[in-house]
Amino acid sequence: MSLENLSINFATVRQAGSFGEIVDACLRHGITSISPWREHVAQAGLAEAARIVAENGLRVTGHCRGGFFPAIDAAGRQAAIEDNLRAIDEAAALNANCLVVVVGGLPKGSRDLPGARQMVEDGMAEILPHARQVGVKLALEPLHPFYAAERACLNTLKQSLDLCDRLGEGTGVAIDVYHVWWDPELEEQVARAGRNRQILAHHICDWLVPTADPLNDRGMMGDGVVDLGRFRAMIERAGFLGPQEVEIFSHRWQARPVDEVLGIIVERYDSVCQADTAA
Amino acid sequence: MSLENLSINFATVRQAGSFGEIVDACLRHGITSISPWREHVAQAGLAEAARIVAENGLRVTGHCRGGFFPAIDAAGRQAAIEDNLRAIDEAAALNANCLVVVVGGLPKGSRDLPGARQMVEDGMAEILPHARQVGVKLALEPLHPFYAAERACLNTLKQSLDLCDRLGEGTGVAIDVYHVWWDPELEEQVARAGRNRQILAHHICDWLVPTADPLNDRGMMGDGVVDLGRFRAMIERAGFLGPQEVEIFSHRWQARPVDEVLGIIVERYDSVCQADTAA
Repeated sequence: MSLENLSINFATVRQAGSFGEIVDACLRHGITSISPWREHVAQAGLAEAARIVAENGLRVTGHCRGGFFPAIDAAGRQAAIEDNLRAIDEAAALNANCLVVVVGGLPKGSRDLPGARQMVEDGMAEILPHARQVGVKLALEPLHPFYAAERACLNTLKQSLDLCDRLGEGTGVAIDVYHVWWDPELEEQVARAGRNRQILAHHICDWLVPTADPLNDRGMMGDGVVDLGRFRAMIERAGFLGPQEVEIFSHRWQARPVDEVLGIIVERYDSVCQADTAA
Repeated sequence: MSLENLSINFATVRQAGSFGEIVDACLRHGITSISPWREHVAQAGLAEAARIVAENGLRVTGHCRGGFFPAIDAAGRQAAIEDNLRAIDEAAALNANCLVVVVGGLPKGSRDLPGARQMVEDGMAEILPHARQVGVKLALEPLHPFYAAERACLNTLKQSLDLCDRLGEGTGVAIDVYHVWWDPELEEQVARAGRNRQILAHHICDWLVPTADPLNDRGMMGDGVVDLGRFRAMIERAGFLGPQEVEIFSHRWQARPVDEVLGIIVERYDSVCQADTAA
């Protein structure tokens, strides 16, 4: 089995340590696609992280993450924009496929959800020219409605694609099964995203039943209720044949040795994540 | 302030005890609209529950609940249908505004979400003729996507209204702020539901930040991030001027004395739940 299209998000194997140590762990398992977080890059230093990527011929499927635009005042919103511009430059230095954008939720103390959504649109419009200039695509990631208040007020694929359409060239979506598996309009919106070449990333994990903690109890592929083979087939029918990036926020999995976790990921990638073309 | 349009769902004041004891508690606070659960009715006996309702001139804003159609085999699905027919008869005996329908999630062991949704539609089609015959409206309640696997695979207002349109006369929706507040298409779909006279119930509580437990950590109105005045204004603009039913599943609130809880509900109903016509 080829692991060419298997990518590891660093959040999945945080226990391995530094940027270099996580890369080494991935390489031990034949995995050459990665998705780091800004904290790992900052700790290693951007130049050193970029050197590790280049010397090992790694593909960076996404840089995590920009976003968090809403803030109670103009100074807060401006600070967010400046931070996003830095994230774009990092993504460029790493030659990442995209900067993943988790847009942010309600400003502290606010009950104005439409207002927060407008702040997201305004913030994206501010940073997009720079992203275009340096050739970094911005991948809006709709998060599960559970996170609407605290992490992202973009909560469906349709809403995110509508925003992409208004923003234009250089934007697209990161489609994470955890966030969108329940959506009754999933098939239609994935097809739309594919038609318009707006699928920039495909993240995988699984939805556990029961889910003990919506933040840190995501499941290993195959352990939950998402039909991942059917999901992948839908994504491929839409024309996206790129990497599947494993992003599992889970206290359980982070408590296990990294080589054990990566071994299981490789096995599950083969057994449950390949497109089920009969579906 | 009139409490005519304030209804108490029995789940909110479970600690008060029996059907009769919960009614007595409501009456002590001037509340004459209620929404009982089947277990309370069964415990009291249907005839006795109906007598309490009639003698006290109570309005039953909903009977909780029918649904849970998906099952792994035909026998399970048939049992669900028969149980729903009994629930319809209870709702008729109580002269309830509607039978609230929580449709059910994935059958145990299944990953087939479209299949579960089809089972819901088939089950609804089976029970609808009887509901029409006895004059009970069926209120489909879309639940928050967090519950898609375990409780309800109807997860947006649009999806629920599309199903109502296919089913026809005698169906509508229960709109609970907890489940739909995040929905980017909320305003448009509430207006649609109102135009077609499909709003059968309006449930209220609040979304807490953080939410410790998605099942039993709903907030008292005013304690969370939902703009309830704006929400109510939207519902009223859509033409629904009926009761707001307080449904708070919460370990915290159920640990407090019922008269204290009802006192706070009456105060919050006045201070944060009235339509904000400036919104």
